Amino acid sequence: MTNGSALFSIKRLLLGRPIPSYAALHERLSKKTGLAVLSSDALSSVAYATEEILRTLVLAGASAIWLATPIGAVIAGLLLVVAFSYRQTIFAYPSGGGAFIVAKENLGAPAGLVAAAALLIDYTLTVAVSVAAGTAAVTSAVPALQAWRLPLTLLFVALLAMGNLRGIRESGRIFAVPTYFFLVSLMLMIARGAWLAVRGEIPPPEVSDAAVATGVTTLTPFLVLRAFANGCTAMTGVEAVSNGVPAFEPPESRNAAATLLIMAGLCVTLFLGITLLARTFGIIPAHDETVISQLGRAVLGGRGLAYYLVQAATMLILVLAANTAYSDFPRLSSVVARERFLPRQFMNQGDRLAFTNGILVLSGLAALLLAIFRGDTHKLIPLYMVGVFVSFTLSQAGMVVHWRKERGRQWRLHAAVNGVGAVLTAVVMVVVAATKFHEGAWIVVVLIPILVLHFLAIRRHYAKVAQQLTLEGYVPPPRRHHIVIVPVGDLQRAVVEALRYAKTLSTDVRAIYVDVDPWATLDFHKKWEEWGQEIPLFVLSSPYRSLMEPLMGYIDEVTGGNEDTFLTVVLPEFVPAKWWHHLLHNQRALLIKGALLFRANTVVTSVPFHLRG
Amino acid sequence: MTNGSALFSIKRLLLGRPIPSYAALHERLSKKTGLAVLSSDALSSVAYATEEILRTLVLAGASAIWLATPIGAVIAGLLLVVAFSYRQTIFAYPSGGGAFIVAKENLGAPAGLVAAAALLIDYTLTVAVSVAAGTAAVTSAVPALQAWRLPLTLLFVALLAMGNLRGIRESGRIFAVPTYFFLVSLMLMIARGAWLAVRGEIPPPEVSDAAVATGVTTLTPFLVLRAFANGCTAMTGVEAVSNGVPAFEPPESRNAAATLLIMAGLCVTLFLGITLLARTFGIIPAHDETVISQLGRAVLGGRGLAYYLVQAATMLILVLAANTAYSDFPRLSSVVARERFLPRQFMNQGDRLAFTNGILVLSGLAALLLAIFRGDTHKLIPLYMVGVFVSFTLSQAGMVVHWRKERGRQWRLHAAVNGVGAVLTAVVMVVVAATKFHEGAWIVVVLIPILVLHFLAIRRHYAKVAQQLTLEGYVPPPRRHHIVIVPVGDLQRAVVEALRYAKTLSTDVRAIYVDVDPWATLDFHKKWEEWGQEIPLFVLSSPYRSLMEPLMGYIDEVTGGNEDTFLTVVLPEFVPAKWWHHLLHNQRALLIKGALLFRANTVVTSVPFHLRG
Repeated sequence: MTNGSALFSIKRLLLGRPIPSYAALHERLSKKTGLAVLSSDALSSVAYATEEILRTLVLAGASAIWLATPIGAVIAGLLLVVAFSYRQTIFAYPSGGGAFIVAKENLGAPAGLVAAAALLIDYTLTVAVSVAAGTAAVTSAVPALQAWRLPLTLLFVALLAMGNLRGIRESGRIFAVPTYFFLVSLMLMIARGAWLAVRGEIPPPEVSDAAVATGVTTLTPFLVLRAFANGCTAMTGVEAVSNGVPAFEPPESRNAAATLLIMAGLCVTLFLGITLLARTFGIIPAHDETVISQLGRAVLGGRGLAYYLVQAATMLILVLAANTAYSDFPRLSSVVARERFLPRQFMNQGDRLAFTNGILVLSGLAALLLAIFRGDTHKLIPLYMVGVFVSFTLSQAGMVVHWRKERGRQWRLHAAVNGVGAVLTAVVMVVVAATKFHEGAWIVVVLIPILVLHFLAIRRHYAKVAQQLTLEGYVPPPRRHHIVIVPVGDLQRAVVEALRYAKTLSTDVRAIYVDVDPWATLDFHKKWEEWGQEIPLFVLSSPYRSLMEPLMGYIDEVTGGNEDTFLTVVLPEFVPAKWWHHLLHNQRALLIKGALLFRANTVVTSVPFHLRG
Repeated sequence: MTNGSALFSIKRLLLGRPIPSYAALHERLSKKTGLAVLSSDALSSVAYATEEILRTLVLAGASAIWLATPIGAVIAGLLLVVAFSYRQTIFAYPSGGGAFIVAKENLGAPAGLVAAAALLIDYTLTVAVSVAAGTAAVTSAVPALQAWRLPLTLLFVALLAMGNLRGIRESGRIFAVPTYFFLVSLMLMIARGAWLAVRGEIPPPEVSDAAVATGVTTLTPFLVLRAFANGCTAMTGVEAVSNGVPAFEPPESRNAAATLLIMAGLCVTLFLGITLLARTFGIIPAHDETVISQLGRAVLGGRGLAYYLVQAATMLILVLAANTAYSDFPRLSSVVARERFLPRQFMNQGDRLAFTNGILVLSGLAALLLAIFRGDTHKLIPLYMVGVFVSFTLSQAGMVVHWRKERGRQWRLHAAVNGVGAVLTAVVMVVVAATKFHEGAWIVVVLIPILVLHFLAIRRHYAKVAQQLTLEGYVPPPRRHHIVIVPVGDLQRAVVEALRYAKTLSTDVRAIYVDVDPWATLDFHKKWEEWGQEIPLFVLSSPYRSLMEPLMGYIDEVTGGNEDTFLTVVLPEFVPAKWWHHLLHNQRALLIKGALLFRANTVVTSVPFHLRG
């Protein structure tokens, strides 16, 4: 183990000491930390939802902007309906009622897989969008950093990955401070904005050089629907609490339900507050500054301390919002993997109790998305929402079936609540897919069935393997003979070691020498008498100087397709002191291993010879 | 072998059928094919040498161009001196008198290694420069291809590599036609140019839009030296024949010497002819057209059939000039490898008798150079010449010592001829290094000592390894005990196969199970009774769920640092039907192999289990 110890030390330094299994139960969330960890996604989306509405409306000119207020009100209402709908899931599924489980149990496995695919896409986009928007908060406050947008986003992803590999409890502790910091500073900003509005002290709206194109199209119902669809980003993240129920302290369901309702209330307040203020202060979206930043400057009197605090809080909550996905993606992928629809490596828990592979895959995919879309929030948003609303719809529809099957107390009421949620989210899903199709939603529409087909293929593969591996009714084939072959080129210590090792393996050991030069062969014979360990030597001729072809021919011949014969090929192998020394030695062993890899009943064994210096 | 057969078929198709060893002697060159194969480098350099002189002189204005004629005459004289100097080497070293061998035998091993480093760099640059210049001939004739310059150069390198992997005789046949085509067409162009000049029918010089900057500096002696240094590219390739003596038909030396002199004569004629014509027709170098192309248009009356034939011939000879290096680089690297200064893989001859690895390394390095310098001849030239003249100088100086040691008939005369060659090439070497230092020559000046240090390090490594491997005085250590360990996770067919295999290896076989979950362990115990093959089972506990740490701890304990104990770890290993199925299975075997790689007296054996579908 000496060799790996430096690597282990680095891992410890970055990720902390290992946590024993019996500590698993203690890694739970209180309501306060639960709100911080699981609601940052939902809360933070208010930082860009208003802007997405305004950016669409303004295409039809500044006069269309008044529509932001009614659209915002509709979305806020929807958000509350969906939150109450999910509250029922929390009690019905105290062990974690993700859309995957609810859809699978009530609507059947295919619906569950569609939900799982939608959710995995959704979580990945949560990371990408939140990190991109958080970086936009930074570059709005410090325009000099504009050129570093993409590297900044990738740095944030790396930090998130590391934080989460350390384990869940510390995540809660790290993220509680920024969440509450964001809540307080935004509430104060909204309050001050309202105060100014009441007193009529509203500064004249500024006209930015970088304002987005206005009045390039006419106000159509389709445009209003697009603005609505964009605004629905405010609803993303509502489901996070119901997925994370088992992470709460007992009583899990009660704590989770309370957290969910607090979160929904805060969300609606912030979203409506920002939307109304933006209207009141006449904000027009710009290319290089976020709406929140413009609003902050207008309300707080330019780039002062208060402004910078709001921007810092927004940046922190956004980048940390991605952390919701870092709780959920690895957990969901481990659940899907347990049912054999994803590679089983997603089930591995590292020594800090985190699902290491899920965290790494999520980070890789999010970084890839950010690189492709150059870290631009507005380009990522159209991809984001299809997955979210597919899972909303399937989850709520599944709950309706659940209540019908259970027929418990007040089941009709419960079913009605979820039914309204299902219908409303289904409508939004169609609106989003239709209005954003060309801007990127098509990617997700195509990706979901592809993912589902892969889930099914993986499950089939595991089933086939299990069938081939089962011990039920297995009768091991009789094995009469074990032949050991040692190909030898020249004679030196490494070869002698290999020959001595081979002799311990079987009574039928044969050395094979390929003759490419008669003089060398003569020399070899002399040395063999002294060092050959009394092993029978077979000399094969090779007119084309190939070593492989005669050797493979001999092996085919000696085993003769006989299922009963088991063959071991023993090779001496240098282990150099430095890896690049491999370049100085022939890689024949590798060739022989490659050629024999797919032969039945054949084992290739390397006897290492360790070189010094 | 079934698995590799498709690959083998493709190889056959590209490279031809294998050639048996006894056919080696027949793969020899006649004078005619020898001239084609070995002189294309020297001949083709006339295609850019004149241009390199003009491009430098023109920096001091059009009035400085007259200096091209005297500079050309000096270079032609030098070329003849060096050719006669090399003619002596051919007779003194009939088995191939490359600078490496001549310098090593007469000036000592360090000088030989410097020569070898210089030559290997030189050959690589021959490929890069010739291919770049050949591509320039194409883009001069067809300006639309200008944008495809780099991909074209890489395509040419790939074609050359393939041609040479097919073997040397076919190289001769392929390359004879273009060499003679080039000679004839250039001679005819020069003759027609001379005829026009005599009759005074010279068209007025055109002024190209893309003419290189003129008159940006004053005419200094340094500039004249730079022009001279650039023109000395005409001399590159003169040594090729003397390196290739053993490739000629017997009598090798006589044939090679005759070939060398014919080549030198042709070279001088072409170089002076082009230089004089360029002066007479008032050619000014341009960015997007070669001097040869401008001359062709002026002499042959615009872009007609004759013009395109000359361009085609120039392109062919240039790209094929690289072939000289494809004969010499692999041969020299195999010689250096035989003396253990380079990895021994350079000695491997493929089944078509070509030095496969040398050809591949040369192609890779040349492609890299072309990519770095965007396929631009003028940027590569400054790197080219240092290596050439270092090897010229060392080779000629070595010959002087050779004659002094031998003291044969007329030795003073022989020594004097080589002595003059040595002094002249040494002067040019200093001029080249000094005048081109900042433009890239410094790279080679730095690279040569670095390469020499690597040669020495490689030789030291092989010496150390040989010492560790020698059987002289070797007493194999006694070996009392062979322990076989099988780590088991769950029980299925692959594990049972591995257990059964392990039982055949030793009488001391132990199965190791790591307990991470007491319920699973209980289950396992029950199955073990039925399927454990009566092998003793050791259960290790692991509070941190790690599999590796308890296993490694047990192995350390059981062997107890005892040199006499030999350990084999047997692992079941899935061989999936499709490579990407590896992603669906845990790679624990790989982890265990990695952890045990550097342990003494330890063999890790995988028992493959072949999965279907």
